[in-house]
Amino acid sequence: MSRSAPPLHAERMTFFSDAAAAIALTLLVLPLVELVPEAVEKHESPHEVITGNLVPFGSFALSFFVIWRIWTVHHRLFDRVDSIDTRIVRINSLWLLCVVVLPFPAEMVGAYGDDRLVISLYIGVLFVSSLTLTALALALRRINPAESAPDRTVLEQLIGNAVALALAFLLTLVVPGAGYWPLLLLLADGRILTLLRRRGVLAS
Amino acid sequence: MSRSAPPLHAERMTFFSDAAAAIALTLLVLPLVELVPEAVEKHESPHEVITGNLVPFGSFALSFFVIWRIWTVHHRLFDRVDSIDTRIVRINSLWLLCVVVLPFPAEMVGAYGDDRLVISLYIGVLFVSSLTLTALALALRRINPAESAPDRTVLEQLIGNAVALALAFLLTLVVPGAGYWPLLLLLADGRILTLLRRRGVLAS
Amino acid sequence: MSRSAPPLHAERMTFFSDAAAAIALTLLVLPLVELVPEAVEKHESPHEVITGNLVPFGSFALSFFVIWRIWTVHHRLFDRVDSIDTRIVRINSLWLLCVVVLPFPAEMVGAYGDDRLVISLYIGVLFVSSLTLTALALALRRINPAESAPDRTVLEQLIGNAVALALAFLLTLVVPGAGYWPLLLLLADGRILTLLRRRGVLAS
Amino acid sequence: MSRSAPPLHAERMTFFSDAAAAIALTLLVLPLVELVPEAVEKHESPHEVITGNLVPFGSFALSFFVIWRIWTVHHRLFDRVDSIDTRIVRINSLWLLCVVVLPFPAEMVGAYGDDRLVISLYIGVLFVSSLTLTALALALRRINPAESAPDRTVLEQLIGNAVALALAFLLTLVVPGAGYWPLLLLLADGRILTLLRRRGVLAS
Repeated sequence: MSRSAPPLHAERMTFFSDAAAAIALTLLVLPLVELVPEAVEKHESPHEVITGNLVPFGSFALSFFVIWRIWTVHHRLFDRVDSIDTRIVRINSLWLLCVVVLPFPAEMVGAYGDDRLVISLYIGVLFVSSLTLTALALALRRINPAESAPDRTVLEQLIGNAVALALAFLLTLVVPGAGYWPLLLLLADGRILTLLRRRGVLAS
Repeated sequence: MSRSAPPLHAERMTFFSDAAAAIALTLLVLPLVELVPEAVEKHESPHEVITGNLVPFGSFALSFFVIWRIWTVHHRLFDRVDSIDTRIVRINSLWLLCVVVLPFPAEMVGAYGDDRLVISLYIGVLFVSSLTLTALALALRRINPAESAPDRTVLEQLIGNAVALALAFLLTLVVPGAGYWPLLLLLADGRILTLLRRRGVLAS
Repeated sequence: MSRSAPPLHAERMTFFSDAAAAIALTLLVLPLVELVPEAVEKHESPHEVITGNLVPFGSFALSFFVIWRIWTVHHRLFDRVDSIDTRIVRINSLWLLCVVVLPFPAEMVGAYGDDRLVISLYIGVLFVSSLTLTALALALRRINPAESAPDRTVLEQLIGNAVALALAFLLTLVVPGAGYWPLLLLLADGRILTLLRRRGVLAS
Repeated sequence: MSRSAPPLHAERMTFFSDAAAAIALTLLVLPLVELVPEAVEKHESPHEVITGNLVPFGSFALSFFVIWRIWTVHHRLFDRVDSIDTRIVRINSLWLLCVVVLPFPAEMVGAYGDDRLVISLYIGVLFVSSLTLTALALALRRINPAESAPDRTVLEQLIGNAVALALAFLLTLVVPGAGYWPLLLLLADGRILTLLRRRGVLAS
């Protein structure tokens, strides 16, 4: 008797993932909201609330961008997928763990700024999420027909992401005081791909 | 080789947006819930909890109305849409940012009342959300056939919204002590449209 | 030119309503979670955390039951519905407001127990939600064909609900110390319907 | 006249359940987030935040795994189901109650570690959720045709779960200091099934 479970519909898992990511995204505002009663207690003006909290605001913007970006890739990955299996549900749970835990390193960023341990924790979570997305892409291509599996463009986007995160990590280690700016490399993953193609690392 | 990504299904992005908006809406009650243990510590009666916190209650009602309204327009915008592209996902992320960040200016409103900086921050976020909705409408009309793109009525509703917000902003600057009442103009965007039509700004 | 908006798909609005209700339901546990660090500060044993907080636990159970019940009726109401219009979106926003605000009276219940103002606030919110559900049923029957509109059974369930809440409200006013027990009448709405039928108030 | 309600579509109930489970999962990070400002007040280094809070981190990981696991079974249970009835909505509400309340015993775990009352509370909630899932499977098989009802594999997985939880409970009582490790038996439910089959408890 075969022990393999029958394939599952993708819809509910993507739905569950969407809901978790949407909540993680929305919870990011809570530390900003909590600044307000603290400021009132200290008799600060509205102007001081904003100018005195640039680090939390930056941390909010960074994490908003990061979670949104991770979700976008997940979105594209499953866009045409109908069937998943237990293995994919398991890999997806690691992705979910990264998304759900992210508000913790984000709060560390808001509190400790550019401490090196904090930065590596933050980028580490992003890197693991990037690896799980790549693993998801490969697993999806194994069980789905070519027309509904994630295509080459998506796989390449994932490679661009992983390379951008690896570069960001390296820059953080090499350039003291680089802080979180290296993460903006995520915006440049398209250009990184072009570069990899030119160098012949990826077939064009 | 064309670098353009294939179109995506609209469903998951609207879903993600819905979840984020629903959470932002539901989180609005948390500041009200937190009033209760504070009141118990100060030995206030239930009656005093309600009469002594009219500003937070008003702020809750205002933001509930505002987020619901923004979501309603988004709902109508995507109602018949099947396909989106990367550009639309990006514009939508700005809309999401407005929705997700809104509890912060809402908390500022509850804490500082009708301070001018606070009001302009609040209406500013609303205005940006209104602009992103208009940009979404235009981008959707570019890639979808006429029967599934947002129709003229929706576009006009968006213009009505933007004009209402611009008027609200002006009133707030011109009339000291106007507070948040100008936002009620959002209720009158239908009438604003009729006016614009009569003046010939929009073809009737 | 007709000013009436075209009909909308019901799916996204029910979805948005589901998400908001699910969040309101899930947030109910937060006051219980907050009991734990307070108990640790007071060096209470795990046993004392549970025996010393029966009112918050009861308030949690009550509100869980109430939100679940309101959602269940909403679920049945829209189960076969495909089309909605702007009027229904508006009535639904009142229902949403009741669901979203409910954690506030729930917290009041946990803090002030059976104070009469608190009870009437709580049952008042429930009664408004019950009225909005009835209004939704009537509006849905107006624009949908018989086979997809909410049927008689659902309408009768709503009447049973409204009557149960009215009875609960009366009992609370008449019997001092009745507390929240009258709300258990919601469990008996089936029997109330049978009674109304026997008395000829509803055709059987 | 038959009093039985017509069948309902499964989709919205599974959706509602997904949203609640996703929120419960995402809220688990809040106690970790709250560690950060406390650590800042005590002038702790980022390193100390992590090494000094192993119990909360372990509690987070445990509860993440547990909620994800409960949701996975629910997912498989309803994967091919189209119709549900009122009875199933009611049993599902008990499952929801377990999911929604879980952050409370999880917080107790984080605060009191391996106190025996806390462990039995935690495993008790899990056991009830396991029983409700089994009840759901049986009720679904009663009203759905064989091809859309949960199949034998799913039922057996549920039995494996329930047995694993019962064993975990026993181990906790018998082995003092066993703590939460017995819950790892949930990972072994596949092997437990094989064992039950070999012993002839389940037909192979």
